[in-house]
Amino acid sequence: MPSRKTDGSGQNQLSERRSPCPVACALDLFGDRWTLLVIRDLFLGSTRFKDFASSPEKIPTNILSDRLARLLEGGLVERVPASSGSKRLAYRLTEKGLSLKPILLSIRDWGLEWEPGTIAKTLPRDESQG
Amino acid sequence: MPSRKTDGSGQNQLSERRSPCPVACALDLFGDRWTLLVIRDLFLGSTRFKDFASSPEKIPTNILSDRLARLLEGGLVERVPASSGSKRLAYRLTEKGLSLKPILLSIRDWGLEWEPGTIAKTLPRDESQG
Repeated sequence: MPSRKTDGSGQNQLSERRSPCPVACALDLFGDRWTLLVIRDLFLGSTRFKDFASSPEKIPTNILSDRLARLLEGGLVERVPASSGSKRLAYRLTEKGLSLKPILLSIRDWGLEWEPGTIAKTLPRDESQG
Repeated sequence: MPSRKTDGSGQNQLSERRSPCPVACALDLFGDRWTLLVIRDLFLGSTRFKDFASSPEKIPTNILSDRLARLLEGGLVERVPASSGSKRLAYRLTEKGLSLKPILLSIRDWGLEWEPGTIAKTLPRDESQG
């Protein structure tokens, strides 16, 4: 499991990195089987905890809570009011999170090519609003 | 952890998939913090168990054994004699494994951009020989 310790800047602390390899550092943030699915859902328009929880993979809510906390700590998502005047909170990709799009697309394309019968929902969105 | 059950064809069995999402299916194969580092090392020229084990991230050997077994089962790597006439075995990326290159490059590029101080070793190789 990725280390949750960060320096508050959304970056892994140098001293806690496994190595200076950019792949290793990236996997410390999203190298698990759930995090990129939450990112996928954010690109597809999901913004609320219940949206992520209702995705077809049925992420357990304790894991979802943990992954959202990591994504917040890592600076990949931010919390915003769900709607004008609402006290409910929603999640939105930051610039750092939005920049994961090429990774998500390359994984999607690979899955479509090598895992027969897989279906991509829609193209992830470019917009930054959650 | 990804399911290790496959149908022997290197593909997830449809009945065991979390969803028909190509991203979810791909993450079932390499969605953890170690597998893509082994793939990285294969692209960089590593072929032997001891090579992977000596990478700077110091993958525990029990995890390395497990990941190599998953990669073999998933059809991403194959075992070949280490050298002509040798009884020792080496690992080599299959066509399916080689096709992970765009994913690895996109993760590398993301890490280089967002994780200050990271250093990419060299460009992964195009050649299929391990």
